[in-house]
Amino acid sequence: MNDDSDPQEKLACYKLTIAYDGTGYGGWQIQPNAVTIQQCLQEALSRLMKGEAISLVGAGRTDAGVHAEGQVAHFKTGQSVDVSRLCYSLNALLPKDIRVKDVELALPSFHAQKSAYAKAYHYHIHLSPVIDPFCRLYSWHLFHKIDIEKMKEGAKLFVGTRDFTSFANEATSGAAAKNPVRTIHSLDIVPRSGGVTLRFYGNGFLYKMVRNIVGTLVDVAAGRLSVDDVCQIFAAKDRRLAGTAAPPHGLFLVRVDY
Amino acid sequence: MNDDSDPQEKLACYKLTIAYDGTGYGGWQIQPNAVTIQQCLQEALSRLMKGEAISLVGAGRTDAGVHAEGQVAHFKTGQSVDVSRLCYSLNALLPKDIRVKDVELALPSFHAQKSAYAKAYHYHIHLSPVIDPFCRLYSWHLFHKIDIEKMKEGAKLFVGTRDFTSFANEATSGAAAKNPVRTIHSLDIVPRSGGVTLRFYGNGFLYKMVRNIVGTLVDVAAGRLSVDDVCQIFAAKDRRLAGTAAPPHGLFLVRVDY
Repeated sequence: MNDDSDPQEKLACYKLTIAYDGTGYGGWQIQPNAVTIQQCLQEALSRLMKGEAISLVGAGRTDAGVHAEGQVAHFKTGQSVDVSRLCYSLNALLPKDIRVKDVELALPSFHAQKSAYAKAYHYHIHLSPVIDPFCRLYSWHLFHKIDIEKMKEGAKLFVGTRDFTSFANEATSGAAAKNPVRTIHSLDIVPRSGGVTLRFYGNGFLYKMVRNIVGTLVDVAAGRLSVDDVCQIFAAKDRRLAGTAAPPHGLFLVRVDY
Repeated sequence: MNDDSDPQEKLACYKLTIAYDGTGYGGWQIQPNAVTIQQCLQEALSRLMKGEAISLVGAGRTDAGVHAEGQVAHFKTGQSVDVSRLCYSLNALLPKDIRVKDVELALPSFHAQKSAYAKAYHYHIHLSPVIDPFCRLYSWHLFHKIDIEKMKEGAKLFVGTRDFTSFANEATSGAAAKNPVRTIHSLDIVPRSGGVTLRFYGNGFLYKMVRNIVGTLVDVAAGRLSVDDVCQIFAAKDRRLAGTAAPPHGLFLVRVDY
């Protein structure tokens, strides 16, 4: 009897939940000229897996400077893995600004990016005249006054199933997303010590979409754009019309739901 | 008529309230081989005061790695100062991990250290098996389990007016404090996301006293010292008997009261 099953099927799949301070990294994805989160994790995993080349797939490719409280990634291996020991050993090898919170055995069909049905991103804005030095790497400090009620009004436009072309950058690869329609289930603007947090929860986010929406909503809150302007930007499907992207260091990938 | 008044009396006194992330600094006080908070502030002040050499007196000499949410300092000058403009200009010159929260005109007799009647220090301990990467520079991560009730029991011994010789290091100058008696008004151990905070409030603290007390209380909470042991350490007036000092990065000078 021939064994014609896919050899991948015989591999076990492991799911990692990861938190990181993105300040010192060139983002999640491996690239030539910067140290990245994916690279640090893959190198530590390979070292613990007897040199086996480990390919780690992340749920979201966070940009340089973006943080994560609950990034999720998976890898496959034929080796047997003691999950709690792997979690402990990874944290012993990794720099302290990257922490593996959990390692679990997943179903063989699990895929960190494709199996996700929703993601939560939070964006922190600091509004005090003088920034708290402990927030400087984790929030966008706005010096000018903004109208939070206007921001809430503008935020309503982004909730629902929409074509987000005007709020998506082309990825570095130059390839625009095939389908620019995404659903934002909720976008709540909640007070936070010294400022506000914009809490995004949606089924998926295009490249730089969260930061572009935050930048646009700050323009609305500052009176530089009206709610009508935002409607027109949506309709035009042209990225050049929307506001400048908010800086990366206010953004956190908080949770991925499966 | 001779003018025999003290020329210092003619100078105006300014009070600064300062927050800083101590991670990258050799502490508050100017020293030869490290960049310090006092140095950064004095250099920025001198630059804004037309090159006048400014001598800044801090309420507490925080060690390398210790943070402040509300350090207070004063300086005297004969130049006229627009306080809100000085605050703004200082923050424009200073590195982002040092922020001047407020500048006020004080009474000529004001002295940041001598006029203080009480200080609040907080010490954060992280107790989760995996540290939150965003807390790594701002709390002491304990890997082992500790008994918080025992810690609370031990903490009671430190409240009141006591001779703290056993919990004070000699300062780098080699000079021990002339009077080792201090009053701790309260020492509360309160839960915090992922751990606990020890909140000290007292009329003054000897060199490394807070960190030595925290180290001793962690020994009590871990079962390495009993409450009786702590009583004996107090009585012996010998620093060598108390626990190891807790690391600096969990400590915050929160407030100075005048």
